Amino acid sequence: MKLIRFGEAGSEKPGVEYEGVRYDVSGIVRDYDEDFFTEGGIATLQEKFDPATAPRVSDEVRLGAPVKRPGKIICIGLNYQKHAAESGMDVPKEPVVFFKASSSIVGPNDNIVIPKNSKKTDWEVELAVVIGKRANYISKEDALDYVAGYVLHNDVSEREFQLERGGQWVKGKSCDTFAPLGPYLVTKDEVANPNNLNLWLTLNGKKVQNGNTNDFIFNVQEVIAYLSQFMSLMPGDIISTGTPEGVGLGFKPPVYLKAGDVVELGIDGLGSSRQEVIDWQS
Amino acid sequence: MKLIRFGEAGSEKPGVEYEGVRYDVSGIVRDYDEDFFTEGGIATLQEKFDPATAPRVSDEVRLGAPVKRPGKIICIGLNYQKHAAESGMDVPKEPVVFFKASSSIVGPNDNIVIPKNSKKTDWEVELAVVIGKRANYISKEDALDYVAGYVLHNDVSEREFQLERGGQWVKGKSCDTFAPLGPYLVTKDEVANPNNLNLWLTLNGKKVQNGNTNDFIFNVQEVIAYLSQFMSLMPGDIISTGTPEGVGLGFKPPVYLKAGDVVELGIDGLGSSRQEVIDWQS
Repeated sequence: MKLIRFGEAGSEKPGVEYEGVRYDVSGIVRDYDEDFFTEGGIATLQEKFDPATAPRVSDEVRLGAPVKRPGKIICIGLNYQKHAAESGMDVPKEPVVFFKASSSIVGPNDNIVIPKNSKKTDWEVELAVVIGKRANYISKEDALDYVAGYVLHNDVSEREFQLERGGQWVKGKSCDTFAPLGPYLVTKDEVANPNNLNLWLTLNGKKVQNGNTNDFIFNVQEVIAYLSQFMSLMPGDIISTGTPEGVGLGFKPPVYLKAGDVVELGIDGLGSSRQEVIDWQS
Repeated sequence: MKLIRFGEAGSEKPGVEYEGVRYDVSGIVRDYDEDFFTEGGIATLQEKFDPATAPRVSDEVRLGAPVKRPGKIICIGLNYQKHAAESGMDVPKEPVVFFKASSSIVGPNDNIVIPKNSKKTDWEVELAVVIGKRANYISKEDALDYVAGYVLHNDVSEREFQLERGGQWVKGKSCDTFAPLGPYLVTKDEVANPNNLNLWLTLNGKKVQNGNTNDFIFNVQEVIAYLSQFMSLMPGDIISTGTPEGVGLGFKPPVYLKAGDVVELGIDGLGSSRQEVIDWQS
């Protein structure tokens, strides 16, 4: 199943995309949030959704992120060997973990706003995992039991804020609009193997990232099991699994986003998204 | 005003502590969450709360964290000069920022659970700020306008997970029970100057931390204004402002928490909290 959220920012409704058509399911479930996943909402939808009777939604309507603001967005750094190299960093011995503010989430086709005083806003296509039930101290063999589905994520990053402003990366990862998510959450039954998906990103129509998740240093199951040793993974939490090579920081000289740029990205089976870049305005 | 949340974990109700007595205000407001602060809930309470008519709550009832799970917990590292020294780190030129998972929040007197495989669980008494309205790109002169109040926080930290497991600090800051918050949120009108408060922590009755927020490297207003340059601060978000010297890591040899230990901590005007330490159990 493909879960969408549609409507104005801040008042999105839950929907389903089925055979290319969008449907309103707000009569069946309230929203895609922690309670939805906890209460077995995907099973409820699979039972009750019927395209013959569900109200249709215009193709023109804005899409929001397909998960309501989660408790946390956990990101894995340097999880593709060639991206670690282009970043000038060693391949990590265990996953590098950082958080991204949930206030940075926007819809898949919303604008990316270059923050005030930013010179180095960059892109990162990533496979994100949505947790389906609370996970603590789980094994990699059991890890996929805790997954609700997968979603496309652009882990937008300000490299000066991230790397040149002292200490930790979070300052360069959490600006508003820095987490376009979607178009939809694809439930895990429709993804045969999350560790073998092509993913790509174009800047103004030119392909700059072109990888496959089979290049992961730590695969999806390893990442989930690892994180569950350090914190509770909660239903609706998002884990973004890292980006392949081809980010702006890795170009020689580096290339960063500017107003007017268009970023498009996609992952096999998870659809594509498109963001226009604008400057911050007061 | 002193805002409390009381009852079983996960189903707390909002309350007020007034002249040492606890009252149930769930008839006036729903909970202390983002909507509460956004909708001017403190003013509503100040208008409608009446100790003559409000139901009283037993002193024996469990206290939860006085804010419902916030969108983010933002922490400032190394914000007292002597603590930077004991940690073996340079005094930062600008605030060091990291996040703590909101799933780590517990009540002020709940147990601290030593995580599985942990050898270096440590304490940190901190002044935490609760944001009252959305803040972007604000000045330090205006910063306190965006504050709802203040709360006592034990920023429990696993030093091996934080410092010896690769990259970023979040792994050592986000374990379940690592954020005892409370006893209450004190509204800002009752705190004359957040940058001049004594704060202390005892381990098994012996004082190990004893500082004053007038030793801040970056004061409350500077921290809020700084963070607002990198992300939206949302109503209900928590900013923990760093810890003074005297953490276990700084002892020679270091001292870490073990099952049976008792930690008590407090800040002038913000009350005190007490946690017993237990081992993780499956």
